[in-house]
Amino acid sequence: MSQNRNEPFAAVDIIGIKREGGVLSGEQIRWVVDAFTRGYVAPEQMSALAMAILLNGCDRREIRDLTLAMVDSGERLDFSGLGKPTTDKHSTGGVGDKTTLPLMPLVASFGVAVPQLSGRGLGHTGGTLDKLEAIPGWRADLTREEMFAALREVGGVVCAATAELAPADRELYRLRDATGTVRSIPLIASSIMSKKIAEGTGALVLDVKFGAGAFMVGRADARELARTMVELGTDAGVSTRALLTRMDSPLGLAIGNANEVREAVEVLAGGGPADVRELVLELAREMLSAAGRDGEDVAAALDDGRAMDRWRRAVRAQGGDPDAPLARAPERHEVRAARDGILTRQDALAFGLAAWRLGAGRARAQDPVLHDVGIDLAAKPGDAVRTGDLLFTLSARSEDRFPAALEALQNAWDISPVGTNYRAEPLIAERLA
Amino acid sequence: MSQNRNEPFAAVDIIGIKREGGVLSGEQIRWVVDAFTRGYVAPEQMSALAMAILLNGCDRREIRDLTLAMVDSGERLDFSGLGKPTTDKHSTGGVGDKTTLPLMPLVASFGVAVPQLSGRGLGHTGGTLDKLEAIPGWRADLTREEMFAALREVGGVVCAATAELAPADRELYRLRDATGTVRSIPLIASSIMSKKIAEGTGALVLDVKFGAGAFMVGRADARELARTMVELGTDAGVSTRALLTRMDSPLGLAIGNANEVREAVEVLAGGGPADVRELVLELAREMLSAAGRDGEDVAAALDDGRAMDRWRRAVRAQGGDPDAPLARAPERHEVRAARDGILTRQDALAFGLAAWRLGAGRARAQDPVLHDVGIDLAAKPGDAVRTGDLLFTLSARSEDRFPAALEALQNAWDISPVGTNYRAEPLIAERLA
Repeated sequence: MSQNRNEPFAAVDIIGIKREGGVLSGEQIRWVVDAFTRGYVAPEQMSALAMAILLNGCDRREIRDLTLAMVDSGERLDFSGLGKPTTDKHSTGGVGDKTTLPLMPLVASFGVAVPQLSGRGLGHTGGTLDKLEAIPGWRADLTREEMFAALREVGGVVCAATAELAPADRELYRLRDATGTVRSIPLIASSIMSKKIAEGTGALVLDVKFGAGAFMVGRADARELARTMVELGTDAGVSTRALLTRMDSPLGLAIGNANEVREAVEVLAGGGPADVRELVLELAREMLSAAGRDGEDVAAALDDGRAMDRWRRAVRAQGGDPDAPLARAPERHEVRAARDGILTRQDALAFGLAAWRLGAGRARAQDPVLHDVGIDLAAKPGDAVRTGDLLFTLSARSEDRFPAALEALQNAWDISPVGTNYRAEPLIAERLA
Repeated sequence: MSQNRNEPFAAVDIIGIKREGGVLSGEQIRWVVDAFTRGYVAPEQMSALAMAILLNGCDRREIRDLTLAMVDSGERLDFSGLGKPTTDKHSTGGVGDKTTLPLMPLVASFGVAVPQLSGRGLGHTGGTLDKLEAIPGWRADLTREEMFAALREVGGVVCAATAELAPADRELYRLRDATGTVRSIPLIASSIMSKKIAEGTGALVLDVKFGAGAFMVGRADARELARTMVELGTDAGVSTRALLTRMDSPLGLAIGNANEVREAVEVLAGGGPADVRELVLELAREMLSAAGRDGEDVAAALDDGRAMDRWRRAVRAQGGDPDAPLARAPERHEVRAARDGILTRQDALAFGLAAWRLGAGRARAQDPVLHDVGIDLAAKPGDAVRTGDLLFTLSARSEDRFPAALEALQNAWDISPVGTNYRAEPLIAERLA
């Protein structure tokens, strides 16, 4: 009775079907996404539907229809004119995860194009664009022509997704963020995959993290999210696979922006922390393999300078100076071991939150981030430490930032007695294809 | 991180608690209702919370806190100055339910005041105010002074609830209606009871209907709703009880507005259909008993004219003319029995919808209703009919209304073979106190 006669459905009826645990038709899903984007379905109706989806779930076909409806809300890029395969990587977000930075030039150095359309960070895990903007001159906001030029000439680009890609997803995500409806696998999977399908990449590797510092803490949830996204990509003709990786402790030693770029450059120089290098190599192999290039010796490209050369060209192509010194905030606070023993726990969430409180992340989408602040770890889980050894250093623009960061770090690590047998779990836990 | 520092809670955190099946504190519930009423919690946040409540439920304490928060959003009437007890009745809505009309004067004739603050009908069940407005001159929108004067001088009043009573409930109900979040027992119970507690009645009888034409089709749901509301009233100091009554077929013979007033007057004259009289008498006994007056001979007051006298005074007190003829729409369409047999089913929902399509109800809150249209039944379930006997008559202002009404009535009744043993279920199924 409340239906507008000009519309084929009433929003309240569609909400009611999902509220009762029913299955929405493709036509209903396409209608509601389109009507929401055009403003005919009110935000309060869409948030009620999002909560019903969160609590009652969606089947595979519904998730696919939701994803494609969001893709169809905007334009779809087409890289077929590049004359080479394309491959991309998406991470669900982790503390200290700077892998995109070495991956783009590394994979591009094998002649496979990497169109990395990224978002900015919100919350305790940083955003790739925020990190790269620590490089003097580097620009994320490229025109369409600049983006294609970088892909043709360098073979890789990391830039901001334009407003024309999956606008329905952007509106829906903003609504979900305000209404407690973020934590739904169908909604997360369709949000990520709508952007990646609209981006037009031919291949995609998903780094789905689980553990204390991950968005999905539980492994089973992470696996379900990964499986859902691999299905969505495959159904949409994107060669998609996923790695499930652990995010209990920070990845690498640097957490912040400029310091993460510094660590990424170390990896590109053939060095860097073992865990970052391991994950970069495995993701690079998967990105190439998904694009039809199996068995490449990716480690060699890090060790012989090919990836580094590509990095320098890519940074310049986006206006950055690869030789410019990266900023360091003036104030330091060192934290040292209070006893001898083995570092057995280093809580990724707490370190991410501490870096965020130092100013490395943002609370609201419109806030700026500070590029020169963050945390540099001096020890990693499994390391033996002695009383007085440096554990980590906080960097900030003023000393008054330290207390809140240190408060987040209370109980954020364990030093177990000397002789404790620490057995590291493998970083890469599972692979789904 | 998204919290406004000026507020003790963040809406997204409160939504998250209920989304995860948790229990909200009284402070959280009071805050969110107040902040929603003041516009600090957005409609899309409140609808997400309503959906989470609908799907995950609330415990008794949460429902009580929600109800009282909505009471506290506005003013609370106080009838203690009347010098007599007050009692009221609320029905969850049924097709042909005109019981409020005889009940108000009948109960008032025993010296117990009846402050009936009502809403208007929306959907297939009519509203009491809409029905009474069929009486020429009768006004629902009384000033505070007129309402108290009617209670003092006549002992009863049926009028529109003012905007100052439970405004949070009004806003929340409007939102729920648009977002598919009406069908939640905690939300229905708190909505009804917040208005009745704010109304200030000392005693309350709830007529909770179940069956094909009721809002709650299932008996178990109706019982749960009744139990919840009796607890809420009792906890708030209102002497509350409930009857569970069947709404499979229309109550009485008249469905509409003017024709329902006509039938109510027949009951006040000691006649009328047996089912309407039975329910009026039982509800009147309960209303008096809840107000401390047990064992009154209510049937006598219908039969000896006391209730009718009171009705005429009450109608006049609200500007109406009890002797004015009631309108009848000019066009008629009669439906007759196609075979001999026993009328064994008469679907209340279908007849309610048909009357609505004739114009007796409204689609939107701002729409007018037609007072002179509706349906008059000539047979009730259990009646023996012969081929060609009148089953019911539709009345409309123009013949073009009939096809849509008749379409609603396809398959709305059964005539079983002669000799079928029809056993009527009792109208009043249960009593809760």
